[in-house]
Amino acid sequence: MSWLDDVKWDANGLVPAIAQEVATGDVLMLAFMNREALARTAESGQAVYFSRSRQKLWHKGEESGHVQQVHDIRLDCDNDVVLLKVTQLGHEPGIACHTGRHSCFFQRYEQGAWQPVDPVLKDPETIYR
Amino acid sequence: MSWLDDVKWDANGLVPAIAQEVATGDVLMLAFMNREALARTAESGQAVYFSRSRQKLWHKGEESGHVQQVHDIRLDCDNDVVLLKVTQLGHEPGIACHTGRHSCFFQRYEQGAWQPVDPVLKDPETIYR
Repeated sequence: MSWLDDVKWDANGLVPAIAQEVATGDVLMLAFMNREALARTAESGQAVYFSRSRQKLWHKGEESGHVQQVHDIRLDCDNDVVLLKVTQLGHEPGIACHTGRHSCFFQRYEQGAWQPVDPVLKDPETIYR
Repeated sequence: MSWLDDVKWDANGLVPAIAQEVATGDVLMLAFMNREALARTAESGQAVYFSRSRQKLWHKGEESGHVQQVHDIRLDCDNDVVLLKVTQLGHEPGIACHTGRHSCFFQRYEQGAWQPVDPVLKDPETIYR
């Protein structure tokens, strides 16, 4: 599959992948993909990442139900970063973060400290089954 | 500076940093930051990255004039990815990519291949001085 060979995988066989919500433009998260994760994402139309902590494929939403429907897959100019345009399913508004927040980027730099500024939409205890 | 200690720098002392255009929501690029790059970005209000190829600080726009004005600095839930909300200065519409395009993510996956789908706004030969 030459399109997979076009990607510049790093020393660990991974590339960073950004998930952006298509309707709002919000950047939801960044995770990593290996070759198989990107192939499965393209095939299935749902985001599949590679979990570095668990060292295995991670079908986003497999435990939480918070699946990401993929509309568009982009590659950057250096062929080493992927951008997914997604709809974050399973909750309205979408919950991409394991803390129960919309986006993983909920900590804002303010006067020398990181402040959590976005609300928890759902108790994470009730998300993971 | 404890806020810099809160960041989980990787084995090379880096974290990925996403630049998102504040007015449009467009994801412009992903680059890396070391501790000094993030500190200078916060101090100066302009994006400073760390160039892995040149192994030195990279004040975005230092050659092209395409500086990024930073409005918001976010950190993700794992403390290992930064998101900048920026205004891409120096051209209208903004040019973040060294190819003269608006965004670095101009290659779209289409039927088993990466297709360049976004226009070159300015000849890169005329950008770098």
